[in-house]
Amino acid sequence: MPIIQIDVREGRSREDIHALQEALTNAVVDHFEAPREYVYVIVREHPGFNHYKAGEHLPEYGDEPEGLTIKRKPQAAE
Amino acid sequence: MPIIQIDVREGRSREDIHALQEALTNAVVDHFEAPREYVYVIVREHPGFNHYKAGEHLPEYGDEPEGLTIKRKPQAAE
Amino acid sequence: MPIIQIDVREGRSREDIHALQEALTNAVVDHFEAPREYVYVIVREHPGFNHYKAGEHLPEYGDEPEGLTIKRKPQAAE
Amino acid sequence: MPIIQIDVREGRSREDIHALQEALTNAVVDHFEAPREYVYVIVREHPGFNHYKAGEHLPEYGDEPEGLTIKRKPQAAE
Amino acid sequence: MPIIQIDVREGRSREDIHALQEALTNAVVDHFEAPREYVYVIVREHPGFNHYKAGEHLPEYGDEPEGLTIKRKPQAAE
Amino acid sequence: MPIIQIDVREGRSREDIHALQEALTNAVVDHFEAPREYVYVIVREHPGFNHYKAGEHLPEYGDEPEGLTIKRKPQAAE
Repeated sequence: MPIIQIDVREGRSREDIHALQEALTNAVVDHFEAPREYVYVIVREHPGFNHYKAGEHLPEYGDEPEGLTIKRKPQAAE
Repeated sequence: MPIIQIDVREGRSREDIHALQEALTNAVVDHFEAPREYVYVIVREHPGFNHYKAGEHLPEYGDEPEGLTIKRKPQAAE
Repeated sequence: MPIIQIDVREGRSREDIHALQEALTNAVVDHFEAPREYVYVIVREHPGFNHYKAGEHLPEYGDEPEGLTIKRKPQAAE
Repeated sequence: MPIIQIDVREGRSREDIHALQEALTNAVVDHFEAPREYVYVIVREHPGFNHYKAGEHLPEYGDEPEGLTIKRKPQAAE
Repeated sequence: MPIIQIDVREGRSREDIHALQEALTNAVVDHFEAPREYVYVIVREHPGFNHYKAGEHLPEYGDEPEGLTIKRKPQAAE
Repeated sequence: MPIIQIDVREGRSREDIHALQEALTNAVVDHFEAPREYVYVIVREHPGFNHYKAGEHLPEYGDEPEGLTIKRKPQAAE
């Protein structure tokens, strides 16, 4: 039973979290031939500040200036 | 930067592990709008015995009888 | 020093969390012959929604309909 | 579904690992009222050297001098 | 890319968390010759109660009596 | 008791691993005012292949071409 743990910034919508969990589940089902009922995904949310990458804190989710690489995703296609 | 940790049974081919890592990466890129260069996937491998689900050890990878739900994946489509 | 990490749904009482921590500690002391002072248990709590099992979110703790398998435990025998 | 992760020194017998996994499973079933089929235990093994506690490496499993607190467990009662 | 995960008690100031993240990053850069841009530190915060060491809950951060070993750090030198 | 988990590529010398563990321990002692005896560092080693960053496997440790950013560290100053 593959267990997937993912630590992300807090502040995403439930739709975003669901979409990610579903996509991760499908990734395992499709590529590891694991039965769907064996896949478990846990999402851990922490403030952007608690993520420290390359000596810089991540901005809080939603606080990035327009055009930055990490930004909110339009929910159209969910 | 989403970090994905996945603990699986040891014994998969490098092609399988690569395919899983790529699929997990894409799952995050597509559904969290995270830039690809920020996604990190770590695969940890342990004997099937070390995985204990519902009070039963998982069989070692490749040892499942024909027809069982967890089995080797044909590598055709990679 | 065995380190035990457990990710559960948020919403349990402190009594429940304590009982679990104590039981996990004893499990290690009794079966791994680890001295009690070396055992460390960390409990991480996340919304039920963040737990995604077999393609389904877990219900929030306490929200399960009567009779469901995951439910509140009576605290009588603690 | 409670997920239990435990990082221990490598070198234990399969009987020891099984006994620990079973005891941890029962701890969750008994004290969190989680159904047995939902409990998952992953045991990760690493050299004693990779465990660094209080500024000291743990000895490799089985290398402790007689009488030390961390030692091999007699398998009589399993 | 070394990933550092650290689970601590909640309640620290942002200055404390930053100082820790920076020190951990430098530890890896200096001693593993990892380029700074590859180091990632995630800090997870949980109530002291959720930390169970040697059969005892840790006190909540800031609640320790004067003179105890775990206490607030003066921020003078940051 | 801060627990530090770090997942790295396998192949480092014991001197390198020790130096990292010691530096991480000191980082916590110096910046979180945690007593040294409470700090625990676990180093998990995995093949470079199992580390997948930005859609690329890390090279195995020691296999990088001369001049690459991730390389072996001279052991002179340990």
